[in-house]
Amino acid sequence: MSDRLPNIELVRRTPFFVSAGEAAMTRLLGGSFTQQLPRGTVMFEQNEMADFLYLLLSGSVAIMARDEAGAETVVEIFGAAELFLVPAAILRLPYLTSCVALTDVRVLMIPADAFREAVAEDPRLSRATIEIVGRHWRLMVEQVVDLKLRTAERRVARFLARRVPEEHGAGSAELPEPRAAIAARLGMTPETLSRTLNAMDAAGLIRLSGKRVDVPDRERLLGSGRK
Amino acid sequence: MSDRLPNIELVRRTPFFVSAGEAAMTRLLGGSFTQQLPRGTVMFEQNEMADFLYLLLSGSVAIMARDEAGAETVVEIFGAAELFLVPAAILRLPYLTSCVALTDVRVLMIPADAFREAVAEDPRLSRATIEIVGRHWRLMVEQVVDLKLRTAERRVARFLARRVPEEHGAGSAELPEPRAAIAARLGMTPETLSRTLNAMDAAGLIRLSGKRVDVPDRERLLGSGRK
Repeated sequence: MSDRLPNIELVRRTPFFVSAGEAAMTRLLGGSFTQQLPRGTVMFEQNEMADFLYLLLSGSVAIMARDEAGAETVVEIFGAAELFLVPAAILRLPYLTSCVALTDVRVLMIPADAFREAVAEDPRLSRATIEIVGRHWRLMVEQVVDLKLRTAERRVARFLARRVPEEHGAGSAELPEPRAAIAARLGMTPETLSRTLNAMDAAGLIRLSGKRVDVPDRERLLGSGRK
Repeated sequence: MSDRLPNIELVRRTPFFVSAGEAAMTRLLGGSFTQQLPRGTVMFEQNEMADFLYLLLSGSVAIMARDEAGAETVVEIFGAAELFLVPAAILRLPYLTSCVALTDVRVLMIPADAFREAVAEDPRLSRATIEIVGRHWRLMVEQVVDLKLRTAERRVARFLARRVPEEHGAGSAELPEPRAAIAARLGMTPETLSRTLNAMDAAGLIRLSGKRVDVPDRERLLGSGRK
């Protein structure tokens, strides 16, 4: 198994498997496999049946949705250690969204059938599953509040702050994704995102340096842009 | 028990308890109680610990969120038969939102402790819980897509169409909630909502009559406002 899954330590340390436990992990790894996919890969399509859950081992993906008119947006960006899309797999429904690799990614693919069976038999795994879907629900609620109430500057500040480890008052946020994807996630045009980042840089709230943003004072960043 | 819970048939027919089963229902009803609350009641506050789950027996509630600046919006409107907020209760986290009765309501209050215990011991209840949180996640994703991609007219059309039973091509959508709450749920001002409803009425897509909206052709309504 260690040949097929050199990242087993990584899997073990994901919040989902810390919560689900070793037994569930061993069981699910049995039928799973890892894939290395280049940036731009469409990992699944909206309306396709959910045959797999994806545990992202490295990189960053966009959960994207298309409306009836064909317009498309980024619903969420998931980074390493996230498991998705649990609801479609559990509900045996088609994916509500598509998923595109925003960077090169390494991903563990867990068959949805095996996952459903394991959840039915393992209360600890079941609990971890409720937790992760609950956390993802909360992320979406936060985003709805962002879109309805918060200015572009506050959305950007909160997005960056989430990428700076909370235990530190300062740090760097990595932004390996295309700016257009981040802008869509934040519900703004790429131009508004650029303008906002440049204004924050000019105000000393952040320092832009390519794919990285240095945040000298996380609290100050979070306090910016208040109405 | 039938004295304390005259609505037991109603509880049994909710999608959640159809899925969770009779054993879970009987167990959870043991420690639960019903309340009749007037319109405007704050049922719980944002950041309060989640001591109860609420199963709405009749009426309509708003799940509301306040940002750091004190501005408030409607995240979701739940009607009869909905169970909320499962994520806070399961994660033992403070409520991410508050909840206000938009009409007079009748609600079953289920202690969160008892719910967590029952979920840990009853796989069928556990599965029903994953399903409901998954469904609520999907509602939030749909709303994010609405807010990012869809025009006011399309948002209103979809909101009304969801209230007309799908098996019928036509029907009536009841709107017992204040228009301001519906507007906030849809991410628009009350003026935009009024203007949109009036334009739809003038175009023959709907017929406004007070707290009710007649929809002569659900498909035609859903096709309106396409970009």
